[in-house]
Amino acid sequence: MLKLYYTPGTCALASHIALEEAGAAYTTERIDFKSNQQNSPGYLAVNPKGRVPALVTDRGILTETPAMLAFIAQGFPQAKLAPSDDPFAFAQAQAFNSYLCSTVHVAHAHKGRGPRWANEESSFADMKRKVPQTMAACFALIERNMLKGPWVMGELYTICDPYLYTIAGWLEGDGVDLATLPKVADHRNRMSERPAVQRVLADEKA
Amino acid sequence: MLKLYYTPGTCALASHIALEEAGAAYTTERIDFKSNQQNSPGYLAVNPKGRVPALVTDRGILTETPAMLAFIAQGFPQAKLAPSDDPFAFAQAQAFNSYLCSTVHVAHAHKGRGPRWANEESSFADMKRKVPQTMAACFALIERNMLKGPWVMGELYTICDPYLYTIAGWLEGDGVDLATLPKVADHRNRMSERPAVQRVLADEKA
Repeated sequence: MLKLYYTPGTCALASHIALEEAGAAYTTERIDFKSNQQNSPGYLAVNPKGRVPALVTDRGILTETPAMLAFIAQGFPQAKLAPSDDPFAFAQAQAFNSYLCSTVHVAHAHKGRGPRWANEESSFADMKRKVPQTMAACFALIERNMLKGPWVMGELYTICDPYLYTIAGWLEGDGVDLATLPKVADHRNRMSERPAVQRVLADEKA
Repeated sequence: MLKLYYTPGTCALASHIALEEAGAAYTTERIDFKSNQQNSPGYLAVNPKGRVPALVTDRGILTETPAMLAFIAQGFPQAKLAPSDDPFAFAQAQAFNSYLCSTVHVAHAHKGRGPRWANEESSFADMKRKVPQTMAACFALIERNMLKGPWVMGELYTICDPYLYTIAGWLEGDGVDLATLPKVADHRNRMSERPAVQRVLADEKA
């Protein structure tokens, strides 16, 4: 039985949706950021990075969203969540998810996580002011060059879709006008209609 | 025939080494950062992100180091550069590489790429001052929890090794004392003895 550690509002949503889409047998445990539970000794024993998500499997613990998503796709091949039998197409999906984690999520994190990379309040404020611009630039590239439609990879719904949906959910809060991103907005609407997404959102809100 | 776009001193080294280790037939083209060639119309047609590396294949262009490394491993299975037939072990390798791209490389980039995330000179200086601390923390975690030895994944040399070698090569420049990281230092030495690594370094210096 798999177990997902998550916190509502974080990128853990992507893996949560993927588990649900895969039809996996899994449980969840919520980590409370307000009480800094991610840095408690108990959770650091699960994930020494002090971050969510983390996925407990019978082989050990996995972290890092792109790796967890690929594991879910490959561990539940009947759900066809990745083109695992085609190294080029699989790499394209991994490249998309890698861009989300290393560039887009990082751009977003400069709004509230400035102390990761600097020490001065003036720097945190400067970083925060730039987030609308960096997130708009990232999503302009996604809109123009990366999101094939109707799903990220085209006709095949993959592990790229819940990840894009998760990060695109931060756009209004990051000061980006969704009206400039019609394909991204359309993707978000299409995602929100999926029963698996609705079940996961209801569970994370409960 | 594959073609790698790279710049010496960048993370493109990881893919360059992996291609050489795989015994792939490939050519390379150097992109000159000093003349801002990465943002020239010609290169932006290859990679609209304006970054290296990029890998031209007969199916299309791939970017993002973790995806390119997985593609090289899966495209040249006889080189056994990843445990591709074991979804959990493969995900562990992807998790390691994802940590390098989304956390470690990002920490390093705050030394010289501050304008990506802020606008003020004072913020750039503040970010730069913190790099020795953030890089030391990242590599302490790698040393303690992630690098199994003798290679990253243990006995099997994988696509994690050239990527770790590449980023560990930035440690002295980032103000981290390698004496505090004996396993990482040992790994770097072991990597530098590999003929494929020596051939690639000679080629990038030429």
